Amino acid sequence: MPGGSPQTLRPFLWRARQLYAETEVVSRTHEGIVRYDYDTYGDRVAQLANALTAAGYGAPDSAPQDSPARIGTFCWNHHRHFETYFGVPGAGAQLHTINPLLPDEHIQYIVENAADRTLFVDQSLLPKLEGAVADDPDPFETVERYVVMGESVPETELDAVAYESFIGDQPTTYDWPELSEDRPAGLCYTSGTTGRPKGVEYTQQMLWSHTMGIQSPQGIPLADDDVMMPIVPMFHVNAWGLPFSATAGGAKHVYPGPKPSPEDLAGLIEDEGVTVTAGVPTVWLGLMEYVEEHDVDLSSLDRLVVGGSAAPEAMIRFFDDRGVDLVHAWGMTETAPVGTVSHLKHGLAEEDYETQLSKRRKQGLVVPGLEFRVVDDDGERVPHDGESFGELHVRGPWVTTEYFARPEATEAEFADGYLKTGDVVTVDPDGYIDIVDRAKDVIKSGGEWISSQELENELLSHEAVAEAAVIGVPHERWQERPLALVVPSEDGAESLSDVLRDHIREKYPDWWVPDTVVTIDEIPKTATGKFDKKVLRDEYADESLVRGRVPDDAAPE
Amino acid sequence: MPGGSPQTLRPFLWRARQLYAETEVVSRTHEGIVRYDYDTYGDRVAQLANALTAAGYGAPDSAPQDSPARIGTFCWNHHRHFETYFGVPGAGAQLHTINPLLPDEHIQYIVENAADRTLFVDQSLLPKLEGAVADDPDPFETVERYVVMGESVPETELDAVAYESFIGDQPTTYDWPELSEDRPAGLCYTSGTTGRPKGVEYTQQMLWSHTMGIQSPQGIPLADDDVMMPIVPMFHVNAWGLPFSATAGGAKHVYPGPKPSPEDLAGLIEDEGVTVTAGVPTVWLGLMEYVEEHDVDLSSLDRLVVGGSAAPEAMIRFFDDRGVDLVHAWGMTETAPVGTVSHLKHGLAEEDYETQLSKRRKQGLVVPGLEFRVVDDDGERVPHDGESFGELHVRGPWVTTEYFARPEATEAEFADGYLKTGDVVTVDPDGYIDIVDRAKDVIKSGGEWISSQELENELLSHEAVAEAAVIGVPHERWQERPLALVVPSEDGAESLSDVLRDHIREKYPDWWVPDTVVTIDEIPKTATGKFDKKVLRDEYADESLVRGRVPDDAAPE
Repeated sequence: MPGGSPQTLRPFLWRARQLYAETEVVSRTHEGIVRYDYDTYGDRVAQLANALTAAGYGAPDSAPQDSPARIGTFCWNHHRHFETYFGVPGAGAQLHTINPLLPDEHIQYIVENAADRTLFVDQSLLPKLEGAVADDPDPFETVERYVVMGESVPETELDAVAYESFIGDQPTTYDWPELSEDRPAGLCYTSGTTGRPKGVEYTQQMLWSHTMGIQSPQGIPLADDDVMMPIVPMFHVNAWGLPFSATAGGAKHVYPGPKPSPEDLAGLIEDEGVTVTAGVPTVWLGLMEYVEEHDVDLSSLDRLVVGGSAAPEAMIRFFDDRGVDLVHAWGMTETAPVGTVSHLKHGLAEEDYETQLSKRRKQGLVVPGLEFRVVDDDGERVPHDGESFGELHVRGPWVTTEYFARPEATEAEFADGYLKTGDVVTVDPDGYIDIVDRAKDVIKSGGEWISSQELENELLSHEAVAEAAVIGVPHERWQERPLALVVPSEDGAESLSDVLRDHIREKYPDWWVPDTVVTIDEIPKTATGKFDKKVLRDEYADESLVRGRVPDDAAPE
Repeated sequence: MPGGSPQTLRPFLWRARQLYAETEVVSRTHEGIVRYDYDTYGDRVAQLANALTAAGYGAPDSAPQDSPARIGTFCWNHHRHFETYFGVPGAGAQLHTINPLLPDEHIQYIVENAADRTLFVDQSLLPKLEGAVADDPDPFETVERYVVMGESVPETELDAVAYESFIGDQPTTYDWPELSEDRPAGLCYTSGTTGRPKGVEYTQQMLWSHTMGIQSPQGIPLADDDVMMPIVPMFHVNAWGLPFSATAGGAKHVYPGPKPSPEDLAGLIEDEGVTVTAGVPTVWLGLMEYVEEHDVDLSSLDRLVVGGSAAPEAMIRFFDDRGVDLVHAWGMTETAPVGTVSHLKHGLAEEDYETQLSKRRKQGLVVPGLEFRVVDDDGERVPHDGESFGELHVRGPWVTTEYFARPEATEAEFADGYLKTGDVVTVDPDGYIDIVDRAKDVIKSGGEWISSQELENELLSHEAVAEAAVIGVPHERWQERPLALVVPSEDGAESLSDVLRDHIREKYPDWWVPDTVVTIDEIPKTATGKFDKKVLRDEYADESLVRGRVPDDAAPE
């Protein structure tokens, strides 16, 4: 059969060693900065692959191609974690990055569901993992070995070996196996706000495709003059795939280690000459404050990639003022993860700054290689007019077509080969995608949709509001009606409910105005810091809270 | 089974229409400039796909996935040829681009070998094709239809229809089929200097991979502010894949039409704002002459990609002086085609211009996603010291693993999953690959290799020489010995043989010095203008020409 050789991660590391043997990998650890080059990195990856193979997890020893040995990591961003990125899949095993911030019961579920055979764990995260195991050892029955990231093993109940001992005696060359491109290479669970976490497998081909996809000018291209520092955790969809693409491009890597402070980040940017960094808006808010109060040299920094949630315009302006291009990207665990990047189109180069900003603040343009559609409740495509909204569906070579061992979730969340992202979006005539809500958060009133997120932003724009969540409450006549929950700011006004409902009414039609505004002390949050609207919906699932308060025009004409 | 959706060309055109409906495709034709946008392009591609499907060549109607209907093109670079690039593979058929410069017997062999069912042919190339058919109609028995590129059909013996009639009545929407990524999408024959042409099939996956590969910063990345004009013919490995990558990136396309003169090229660069163009050195020599004699504005031009053979340093300097970055690329029909690109490494940014030039004049650095090795006659890897040389072997997702319907050629030219490129190269410590000869042209003397190409260059550097070819002549003791064939320049010296042998001896060891220098009137050439060394070797395969003239040290110590 015609075709090329399989798409695997192997050539990326091979190329980096061939061409950039002396380019550095830098890692901030508890003991200070660790610094070595691609050549040493390659040696250590080979040692790890040998150790995994000796332990029986290599490609030739494992069962069928589609069920490799799964190897979990419970780690922050550092060089050893990066070694597992090429070492585990390269040996033919499957790298399962676990989010250590999850509640114990999720960790237990995930390890059991994945049947992990070895867990790599940071010293600082050992107590957390020990706690989860002690609480219920059953889910960890498949785990044959705990490998503690470091030179030695602290006192622990777990049967643990030190990473440096695990790989130390192994040869620094390894006979990399010829793997099928369909072989699962990675695994990551979604931190769902509803239900149990769902696993997404990444085949060698998916990781290859994602790497090449984001290396295009329409993605987040990295070259040999780049210094890439991912703040996004390596347990969040492979740190958005940047460790792989940085290697493909021959860039220098900088890993910020456990819980970097804004001061740590500023120091690494200055000391290592970071050109590209990536993380959620919260991280950059911290850095912004630090930069305003200290003399920080950001001159090396070229691009700052923001994902996870939208960056406020003020943040884009802040970094523009300092010569740093804040680039929005959107993605999900299911999309490996990058799906859109908000580059400014050539045709907008002559527009004024405010117009450009109104585009750049959106989630952006689809990366070449992917396809999407936006559909309403009836499955009809909505126009790309920047106003109509519907659910975003995507498909492509690095978008999963199923969940791991969860046929019922696969059945529910895919259609016609597309992933139903659960994001409700508009698409403007230029093709910029803008998320207006999550599908499960959108409020369905009288057959039309109300964006909870827009209402929350509008509430937040009022000085009396510190936090705001809007949920749909079941309603017999209208199906759902919006209920707002707000945490008042210190300047909290009297009769807040009327004030805020008037505030919304200034900008939105009557039928969008929340029927009720409830004042609470704190909005419940998930393990990843998002509003836990499931809890809110359970608590406020009482029609009496909205009944009788609805205007006659609670739906559009 | 886990994985993403198939890698096909479809998303590239889909994205261009979504985001860049108004971006132009410009085409120089006999009737003047044709100009339309991606939206119209997409409509016309859909019409073509409908017409092909109606003719029975669509995916659902054709036989197994691995043997789609093959559709040949016999065309220059223009918009209609570009329409076949997405229309033919998109409908599930296989695009077979035929080199109209080949001798009739090669064209006959190729059409018969491919069993083409329809041929698209330019009006200006119709006489050439008619000649090939008239000479021997048998090979064309599978051809059901000739489609002449244009509004109407000139008088012809062939059963022909006009392209605009073929697609004209078809709908402008098309239900693009879900294709396997393993489905053959393209086909191109190598213009071998020895033996019959060999076909290389490109699957959807190979074309997708190549597109994404060259979109990386380490390739020839194109974005929406680029204007791409391929001078390299569209029958030469899909014009180096640029029509696909330009579409993926949303760039403007400019097609120069039949036999563009340097004046035509200069005019298109100026009028259309071309930023990237690509072709063989001969084309640029013509442009250089024109630019020196006329007032040409090259300010839009950013990059000039050179492949096919090496650009002389003077050419790189010429374009550097005018703010145009001349980028070397290397590839083959078998590598779809781009394998290496000669970007200047970051680490060389501080070096002086001459050092940089000595790197940039080489074939360059391997593109991410591919792997190579360089091996000697015994299959041993040669060191990457910039001096040792061996045959270049490559493998990767866009490198073929077989020849079309030629198992004996496949057997001969692949090893361990690598393509044996037939190029003899050095690799320097920075990783730059430099072709020093073709494997079949290298002269094997006493167990060591002599580069015929280096000797030719050295001979050419002498003012008395206009053309030079060096071949190996079989020799009982030394296996082969070099024989030089030179065409004297007007200043041709007396006793040229001694003069040139002394000239070589100044720079090379004695055993490299050609035993004999023969003066001839003209060096025979192939259809593509390369020296036909096969003819020379046949003619001069006489040991008496070199016997007795060899020094005792005809091999290294």
